[in-house]
Amino acid sequence: MNAAESVVRTAEAAGVEVCFANPGTTEMPLVLALDRTTRIRTVLGLHEAICTGAADGYGRVKGTPALTLLHLGPGLANGLANLHNARRARTPCVNLIGEHATWHRDADAPLSMDIEALARTVARWTARAVHAREAARLTAQAIAQACAGRGGISTLVLPHDLLCEEVGDAIATVPPPEPPLPPDPGAVAAAAELLRGAAPSALFLGGPALWGEGLRLAGRIARATGATLICETGFARLATGAGRPPVHRLPYFPEQAQALLDRFGHIIGCGAKRPVSFFGWPGKPSRYLEDREGVVWLAGENEDAVGALRELADMLGAHEDHPGSDYDPPALPSGSLDGAKLAAVLVHHLPEQAIVVPTAVTNAFPFSAIAERARPHEQLALTGGAIGEGPALAIGAALAAPDRKVVNLEADGSGAYALQALWTQARERLDIVTIVCANRAYRILQLELERQGLSGGSATRALTSLEDPPIDWVTVARGLGVPGVRVEDAEGLGRALTRAFAEPGPFLIEARLP
Amino acid sequence: MNAAESVVRTAEAAGVEVCFANPGTTEMPLVLALDRTTRIRTVLGLHEAICTGAADGYGRVKGTPALTLLHLGPGLANGLANLHNARRARTPCVNLIGEHATWHRDADAPLSMDIEALARTVARWTARAVHAREAARLTAQAIAQACAGRGGISTLVLPHDLLCEEVGDAIATVPPPEPPLPPDPGAVAAAAELLRGAAPSALFLGGPALWGEGLRLAGRIARATGATLICETGFARLATGAGRPPVHRLPYFPEQAQALLDRFGHIIGCGAKRPVSFFGWPGKPSRYLEDREGVVWLAGENEDAVGALRELADMLGAHEDHPGSDYDPPALPSGSLDGAKLAAVLVHHLPEQAIVVPTAVTNAFPFSAIAERARPHEQLALTGGAIGEGPALAIGAALAAPDRKVVNLEADGSGAYALQALWTQARERLDIVTIVCANRAYRILQLELERQGLSGGSATRALTSLEDPPIDWVTVARGLGVPGVRVEDAEGLGRALTRAFAEPGPFLIEARLP
Repeated sequence: MNAAESVVRTAEAAGVEVCFANPGTTEMPLVLALDRTTRIRTVLGLHEAICTGAADGYGRVKGTPALTLLHLGPGLANGLANLHNARRARTPCVNLIGEHATWHRDADAPLSMDIEALARTVARWTARAVHAREAARLTAQAIAQACAGRGGISTLVLPHDLLCEEVGDAIATVPPPEPPLPPDPGAVAAAAELLRGAAPSALFLGGPALWGEGLRLAGRIARATGATLICETGFARLATGAGRPPVHRLPYFPEQAQALLDRFGHIIGCGAKRPVSFFGWPGKPSRYLEDREGVVWLAGENEDAVGALRELADMLGAHEDHPGSDYDPPALPSGSLDGAKLAAVLVHHLPEQAIVVPTAVTNAFPFSAIAERARPHEQLALTGGAIGEGPALAIGAALAAPDRKVVNLEADGSGAYALQALWTQARERLDIVTIVCANRAYRILQLELERQGLSGGSATRALTSLEDPPIDWVTVARGLGVPGVRVEDAEGLGRALTRAFAEPGPFLIEARLP
Repeated sequence: MNAAESVVRTAEAAGVEVCFANPGTTEMPLVLALDRTTRIRTVLGLHEAICTGAADGYGRVKGTPALTLLHLGPGLANGLANLHNARRARTPCVNLIGEHATWHRDADAPLSMDIEALARTVARWTARAVHAREAARLTAQAIAQACAGRGGISTLVLPHDLLCEEVGDAIATVPPPEPPLPPDPGAVAAAAELLRGAAPSALFLGGPALWGEGLRLAGRIARATGATLICETGFARLATGAGRPPVHRLPYFPEQAQALLDRFGHIIGCGAKRPVSFFGWPGKPSRYLEDREGVVWLAGENEDAVGALRELADMLGAHEDHPGSDYDPPALPSGSLDGAKLAAVLVHHLPEQAIVVPTAVTNAFPFSAIAERARPHEQLALTGGAIGEGPALAIGAALAAPDRKVVNLEADGSGAYALQALWTQARERLDIVTIVCANRAYRILQLELERQGLSGGSATRALTSLEDPPIDWVTVARGLGVPGVRVEDAEGLGRALTRAFAEPGPFLIEARLP
């Protein structure tokens, strides 16, 4: 076997099941090696951002890394913004980059870039093979590093000549992950003490504290102590809806975020960084919890949040599950759509165990506010603020959970970043319903100006309006192989969702919003 | 005036005329400052790659830098692959990046990335303002560095709080560029001696030796000495067609490139790097001219190629212009299309002074082979190998030369990277005709496998075929505001080109190719 096959066989032996790829000449040995396995599904993206965003979605839902296969520095550069989001989500992900042959590298051929410099801006672990025989071992290391702790990004640079070299039977084994460090007993005791106190308390949660066992434990603690659950604005994954403990999402705008946190005398953090504002808005704080008393951090974003919650629940004797929210869909609205009506219709129709990717920028807020009234489902949010990831995140989620419906609640501004994703959704026959909230503007920027009492002139209008020409989303989607409809009112949206959830495969709904 | 206005006013005073932007909250002070000038046109791209590719096209044609306005690290990351192409083209370009407020930076907010690490992979000059009052001076430096020598990329990082600070009347002046260093007299004399020798000679040209005065001088030398003119495979700009001296493009595949160069006993380089192979193909050399005698380099890619050609022409007494190629359009073919027929029809219809962006990967080869038989026109090629730049390059070229028709001869594989560019073409009513060579494959990868006698299995097919689903380019374009037609034969292509060149505004032709 050549080194390329040793890389693929090592990944296969470690349980890797999917490779999101847009290869070039230097990656062809890896493509030919992928031909020889049926256990790794290869999924083509028409742009590397689709590959990396899909790997993020896959890793968040599956908990294990996907491979990406990217072409030299420019291919990695194209995928970098979504890798930034994946890094913020703590998603396990392994990038394989085919590099120029070792003997060709100093020729400074056209595609030569400083691949490692690019990789280090997002990667936990970056390496370059300098011998063919180490390719398998480095692949195993890349996977181990991607899986360590909560998860991270590994990038392995593989020169073309080394990939073609014979290496014998050189599959490497990925070592089992290190067990997490035990939680700090002092922090657990301090948190328990705060929760037993008189002041209103909140748990500020992120990472694995927001789904599965983590959320169940947090719910038990909330039930036992009356604490409120709050999550990061940009969470990686959140389980919500009927039967799940209600979780308040920290608002995006700083005055709203601060107001929510100020309602609580005690705040216990777990699985998240201490919350900071999204931008440095003039006159607003960077750090919402700075100079506050009554704050204890059980586990940071890289620590064992679930283990810490387990110990805290034990210490509090909190063993009864939270009954969770009732299934309480809002009344179906009628007439012309706005963000609130759209949210109500979606909550009403959302199938059980759906995965929602609410990456619409302004129009995801109303959905977040009432999502707990829907059937049980999960959400994947934009973690790193790099817009345009939603349609690709949805691809990864759909491949990780083929028996669940995926809904991408997308904006027209951010969705336009990732038109290419629709093609992959069609090619792979993925059960993804895209709802484009077509307000024909970068509304968030217009809102920011309104908050400052500014209106702006011709440049501002040119750079924040998407009116001219209006994007005809249904037509674009059809051209890329995805059927769809345009809806103008709540009734039409309801009909479109009914149809979309009944049929397999991707579907796009352009919802005209003011 | 605040620092943002001092930046914009400094650029305006330096003659900057266009800003390709996709701003976010941290750039809004710059957007508001752009509201106050009518001399800088703001052009929105739906993805930052469109902005940077357009800036590359603009700078190549205009010779002066455009601004780009990009949102923090992720925005720069999205634009990086085309900046890599621009760096290889030696295009002057100034990136302005709005950064988090200085006091917010160490909060590690979601969008925080190492902006300078990203910028340095492509930029000649990178700086960060640390005082509001230096913003204007740094802008002037950024422009000066972008314009120095042949051109380069400057990136200026501007924190939001500094942009909002009052700075008084703080416009800075861009210093005049340094005069280029005089050519090496020894190299000029050695080149003249080779050209007077008996062996067949070639001038290997790049940069400004391929258009305007540079090409005229090269033509005079060719006429006086019988030398053949050869250009880089990935040239930044080439003037060709009737009345221009014929220039052979160095082939992409190494055996063909080597065979062309081997025909010449003497090779004089000017304005280009010594040619290297695009990839490190096994058994092929990296450097085509290594260990060869009879090679003299008059001017490298950063030296004064035009000045060197002037001295060489003087020394040779080469004062008569080359009569150039005759206008000799090929006979119009008929029937179903292939790359050669498509090229013939395009050469036949191409209007005088058109700018062609031949970024189709495999299907641009036949066009290159006969382009000199067309009316006089110019071409902008892919310099850095990062595919998907063509539709954005075309935007920049059209804005730099609004009285000329622009033709983007694009592949479906690379064109799919930049669907978003069609929207900007529609919004700005640009005279761009896009011809999509729709062979529904990444044909270059299939060719590479064929050259190795390989066929590949299911992964190879999945990652090199664009058959399923076929992209309906005419429909996608219509959804983005660009009219178009699909053509299957040479006659249909001729009719479509006649229509497209007669009407103002963008037009797309999907040409079905085998």
